[in-house]
Amino acid sequence: MDPLTIDTVKLSGDALVIIDQTLLPNEVKYLSLRETPEICEAIRLLRVRGAPAIGVAAAFGAYLAAYYAPDAGLENTFLDACDQLAASRPTAVNLFWALDRMRSAFAKVSAKSPDEIRSALRAEAQAIMDEDIEISRSIGRFGLGLLRPGMGILTHCNAGTLATAKYGTALAPVYAALDAGLSSLRVYCDETRPLLQGARLSAFEMVSAGVDTTLLCDNMASSLMKAGKVDIIFVGCDRVARNGDAANKIGTSGVAILAAHYGIPFYVCAPSSTIDPAITTGADIPIEFRSPEEVTELWYQKRMAPEGVKVYNPAFDVTDAALITGIITERGLVRAPFEEGFAKLGLLGKR
Amino acid sequence: MDPLTIDTVKLSGDALVIIDQTLLPNEVKYLSLRETPEICEAIRLLRVRGAPAIGVAAAFGAYLAAYYAPDAGLENTFLDACDQLAASRPTAVNLFWALDRMRSAFAKVSAKSPDEIRSALRAEAQAIMDEDIEISRSIGRFGLGLLRPGMGILTHCNAGTLATAKYGTALAPVYAALDAGLSSLRVYCDETRPLLQGARLSAFEMVSAGVDTTLLCDNMASSLMKAGKVDIIFVGCDRVARNGDAANKIGTSGVAILAAHYGIPFYVCAPSSTIDPAITTGADIPIEFRSPEEVTELWYQKRMAPEGVKVYNPAFDVTDAALITGIITERGLVRAPFEEGFAKLGLLGKR
Repeated sequence: MDPLTIDTVKLSGDALVIIDQTLLPNEVKYLSLRETPEICEAIRLLRVRGAPAIGVAAAFGAYLAAYYAPDAGLENTFLDACDQLAASRPTAVNLFWALDRMRSAFAKVSAKSPDEIRSALRAEAQAIMDEDIEISRSIGRFGLGLLRPGMGILTHCNAGTLATAKYGTALAPVYAALDAGLSSLRVYCDETRPLLQGARLSAFEMVSAGVDTTLLCDNMASSLMKAGKVDIIFVGCDRVARNGDAANKIGTSGVAILAAHYGIPFYVCAPSSTIDPAITTGADIPIEFRSPEEVTELWYQKRMAPEGVKVYNPAFDVTDAALITGIITERGLVRAPFEEGFAKLGLLGKR
Repeated sequence: MDPLTIDTVKLSGDALVIIDQTLLPNEVKYLSLRETPEICEAIRLLRVRGAPAIGVAAAFGAYLAAYYAPDAGLENTFLDACDQLAASRPTAVNLFWALDRMRSAFAKVSAKSPDEIRSALRAEAQAIMDEDIEISRSIGRFGLGLLRPGMGILTHCNAGTLATAKYGTALAPVYAALDAGLSSLRVYCDETRPLLQGARLSAFEMVSAGVDTTLLCDNMASSLMKAGKVDIIFVGCDRVARNGDAANKIGTSGVAILAAHYGIPFYVCAPSSTIDPAITTGADIPIEFRSPEEVTELWYQKRMAPEGVKVYNPAFDVTDAALITGIITERGLVRAPFEEGFAKLGLLGKR
């Protein structure tokens, strides 16, 4: 299956349709979601995940709340849905950014008829999705400029087509390379515990796309780098501070520290919607902690840790800007000092 | 259950008795092994694991081969068993060291009667086990000298009582601390993919011993260190080169690089039997690669990676001596330059 034919998230008639990512790679199943609570739950349970994809899903979710609302309660229902969706996950800023866009779109047409409002909201959500595809393509092109035939690319978690409306961020350069006929790339996927997005999603995408793909446990990255297999690292991100500190899936900061140790370039692929001008450094990015059971029992045949053990389960960590070789946005590649670079590309304007 | 009451490995009558570590923490089951092939299989499948423990198991295995051999074929059967046992796993040097001791013990008495030979082999194997317990206690005492109340200790894999005849190496200082009444230590266990020795064994030992124990996925160690939770790191090892380069469970080198980045002291706990004077640097330590299925399906309810993906699955990696704060042996704590320190403690003599 060509992974680019997968609809990660789309509006289909009167429903948000997503592929249930918790079932991959064993089962390809699409879900049709209509109610705000079920969309929030899908985001919370990572049925749809990846910062750009949850932004798109939330935008469609906000539109659908207005679509199903009675004319009289449209505004309240819509704003309440935005609040509920915003509370589904805390770290990725795209969620808040997309909902802000939806609220702004609403504000512009709030005096109009309910159906005109619904139509405007639908158009805005669709625009967020369409722009996301273009952003990914552009990140792919800038990333492609860093690739040479035969390179080994390491990625962590999944920032592929399944994490966006299409193409992905960290994997977009690989799709661009396939498109350009740049051959013989090797992609290494950290499995990314506890939820195995690397093993289940990135490896699935890359194998499906016909790429030479190798899976490794997260703790094998140091050995792989020392063995000279990794030429470049691409990761996605969930929120970037003004100074370039980047929150991404737990373990990313460790990969960056290893990369610095071994002298391997480390790139963060960041749609502008992921850059949060309101946040000065990574210390201010809220980090989601998730349930112990994700570590102790999820996926397993049996409980894999003793009863009574405490569990440390942050879903994200922050990579210091000093460890980042470059941040690839849809407007270009930014190098340190990042705040200056972001400003030059107009990426620190009002969200 | 007090974990120190567990018999990791012992001779009981005419059998080697081990606790089957692949079933922990869900099931406590002892296996009685008699034949060389089943002892080799138990080592290969990690039913008994940990460099010191497999040394002891191999010694008893060699003795049992002689015990069950017909008088006429005793020498051949014994030497063949030594060869088979030596081929069971490649990285930990204790296996070869223990078998060398058994062969030397045999050589000394080879002119004697079969029963005298058997008796001498039994005594040598038991001596290896008894010495291992004393070595662990001594490492524990030296490690205890580095601990202060309230410290957070990170460990990787399992180098506890389950990895040795008793007490462990990396966890021996914790047992010594409990014994000495040093309270309020916090122990953090990397789960240690793919076989989860940290989650299944170290966390099990520490929780059972009543220690404040927190489990984390391997990729969370950077976040934990950045959060200031880790004051000191203890790991075991499978083979140490003359220059101090230390092979240990895959992921250890990554932990050491993170520790250096965050300025956290990183100690390797190494019985002298783990120091291999025949090897100059870590580059010469053979690294075992294990089957892809350990990463893609073992423990899981379903296959957790796409069919067709390649898997990188080294069981060990080598931590550069430059990243190691100190190596704790039963004769004392060695700091860089390690070769000089080993020599001073008489650790580079003929094995």
